[in-house]
Amino acid sequence: MSTFAGLWDDLREVGRDGRTGGYRRFAWTPADRTLREWFRGAAESRGLIVDVDRAGNQWAWTEDPDAALARGRTGLVLGSHLDSVPDGGAFDGPLGVVSAFAALDALRADGVVLARPLAVANFADEEGARFGVACAGSRILTGALDADRARALVDADGVTMAEAMAAAGHDPAQLGPDPDTLARVGTYLELHIEQGRGLDEIGRPVAVGSTIWPHGRWRLELAGEANHAGTTRMADRVDPMPRLAAAILAARDAATRAGCVATVGKVRVDPNGVNAIPSSVTAWLDARGPDADEVRRVVGEVAAAAGADAVEESWTGPTRLAQDLAADLARLLGDAPVLATGAGHDAGILARAGVRAAMLFVRNPTGVSHSPAELAEPDDCAHGVDALTAVVRDQLRG
Amino acid sequence: MSTFAGLWDDLREVGRDGRTGGYRRFAWTPADRTLREWFRGAAESRGLIVDVDRAGNQWAWTEDPDAALARGRTGLVLGSHLDSVPDGGAFDGPLGVVSAFAALDALRADGVVLARPLAVANFADEEGARFGVACAGSRILTGALDADRARALVDADGVTMAEAMAAAGHDPAQLGPDPDTLARVGTYLELHIEQGRGLDEIGRPVAVGSTIWPHGRWRLELAGEANHAGTTRMADRVDPMPRLAAAILAARDAATRAGCVATVGKVRVDPNGVNAIPSSVTAWLDARGPDADEVRRVVGEVAAAAGADAVEESWTGPTRLAQDLAADLARLLGDAPVLATGAGHDAGILARAGVRAAMLFVRNPTGVSHSPAELAEPDDCAHGVDALTAVVRDQLRG
Repeated sequence: MSTFAGLWDDLREVGRDGRTGGYRRFAWTPADRTLREWFRGAAESRGLIVDVDRAGNQWAWTEDPDAALARGRTGLVLGSHLDSVPDGGAFDGPLGVVSAFAALDALRADGVVLARPLAVANFADEEGARFGVACAGSRILTGALDADRARALVDADGVTMAEAMAAAGHDPAQLGPDPDTLARVGTYLELHIEQGRGLDEIGRPVAVGSTIWPHGRWRLELAGEANHAGTTRMADRVDPMPRLAAAILAARDAATRAGCVATVGKVRVDPNGVNAIPSSVTAWLDARGPDADEVRRVVGEVAAAAGADAVEESWTGPTRLAQDLAADLARLLGDAPVLATGAGHDAGILARAGVRAAMLFVRNPTGVSHSPAELAEPDDCAHGVDALTAVVRDQLRG
Repeated sequence: MSTFAGLWDDLREVGRDGRTGGYRRFAWTPADRTLREWFRGAAESRGLIVDVDRAGNQWAWTEDPDAALARGRTGLVLGSHLDSVPDGGAFDGPLGVVSAFAALDALRADGVVLARPLAVANFADEEGARFGVACAGSRILTGALDADRARALVDADGVTMAEAMAAAGHDPAQLGPDPDTLARVGTYLELHIEQGRGLDEIGRPVAVGSTIWPHGRWRLELAGEANHAGTTRMADRVDPMPRLAAAILAARDAATRAGCVATVGKVRVDPNGVNAIPSSVTAWLDARGPDADEVRRVVGEVAAAAGADAVEESWTGPTRLAQDLAADLARLLGDAPVLATGAGHDAGILARAGVRAAMLFVRNPTGVSHSPAELAEPDDCAHGVDALTAVVRDQLRG
């Protein structure tokens, strides 16, 4: 019998908002610390060797990975992340970590002898909800995010990542690329809840990930002239709100035409008073799609509609996961479907750093993610654990 | 020589935001308390009798107003307010209070004997910036705002007005209508910076207010379905942002057509994450105009465009200030222009409660208000003090 349910229950209330039922598990907060302590406890109770790399990511190894590496044997790592977006769902992240522990338990219960080290990983700050850079833990690990820049990132309260890390008991001075840790990872496999309805539509429980769409974030600064809402004639106004409106509508229309997705999900209005014409509006645009040129065309249309520059905050080109591995996994899992995804993942960051990386997706009947309504049925979670188990058996044959 | 400049300098740094240069003087905060202590000090140093009414408004009388009332003599009150909108200007409110003290000083310097009591008033929480109800102090005073409802109003941090008052040393249990205070007020005259360019366009320093446009605030609740910005196809989205965009554009277009003003100046997006389709957006609409039916038609068009109900948070019909008094003042001030205004004021609340109320406006060369760019030139401030002095001389002849 699977240990999944027990592990899952441990996490149910950590960082949960009582009002919305969503999760607020932001990097280097008390909720995040509780999750990291849970990870350490789950690993140590299984006799795993826990290591924290220079980027703050947690690794739990079945054996000394460096000793194995000295014998020419790299590890197979199963993992994901435990942090969340604001009011996130329960599955995005934790499903991959919990399923990894459950798969290890299942293999041990079956007496499987592993020919290479196996690890469970918890990547730090995957969502970027607090400091604005997604996959911060894996980006720092691989050098894609400079340590000085990371330390200086600030949250909405002006707290730097360095300060937040220190408050959570992690020394920010150690931050930096960690090639020794990366060298241990022969293969990285991330199981994740699907964030769309692809599997539901074809009636399958598990898919293999193939590519991650190019995606980025842009910021639009719309300057206005603060003034009184009751006494300033419409013709005299310098109001940034109609430009915000134009950006929102252009994002919807241009993305629809281009077969991309584009979202204005975050807005800051200053001073945000009912009877004040705003002095400024800042809007953030998230855009992704199968084709990088089309994504950039959408961003250009939004910027033109808003009459502003689109300041690029992040950009990741198309990422191909290990195609041979994906094909192997699809065959191993009974001709599982192979999907592209619009979501960024640590697996993509590792793949861009040369790691052999793959993903598995578990069916989400609502297609909803980043929301309390995010859901995977227990049967499908069990299918996910079985899939991980099958992959480990296949990859770590003695 | 006027005492205006010295009084004005006292206030310059209170509640000022060092970054924007704007003021954040919200009701019942430490900054507000400093302003109220300044008022008490300015009054007591002039030998005035300071009284705080049941609504928390401050009054500084030249003599015992009740003793005068017993002799059949009501008072003339000059005043305004000291609180501000977020990032407000220096003049909206304080100009009226400081000018009132300066006018009293000028009258005394000239040896004028007052035949009736004169008071300077500071109305509490005029802007409604913290608890969402404008003119809260005068509305509670006159009974237009129920005391229980006022006590239960909450700010953005969930603090009730009752809690905020108590923290500022004012007993919220006393809140309520105060007819004894109102009975003392024969005439209320509020001097205020003009919040448009009417005076600048005709080259005059001071105008008399005649009517206050009907005005109100409405709330639009736009429900969405939180979801992942990267994986949810455009066609599958329930995104409230395009409805927000429609509301913003409809407010601009409908108000322009109707000769009204309408503003979406405050927005709340949940969860406000870059990579999350919002689960909900709340937008506030401020609408005003010369004709109440036209204002309501604009609100209806905005609601229809957004596909939402416009929930009325406040509504004030057209307010005629004392027309005979306005005519007298215009004549007294050298045929000063008489203007209507789109801004609500405590003078309007008092007029609706039967007080003989009037307003004076001081030229604002930029027309900008509710902004750090709000301005009145020193010469025009002096014209304002002179106007108040002339009115007091005229009204309080022995």
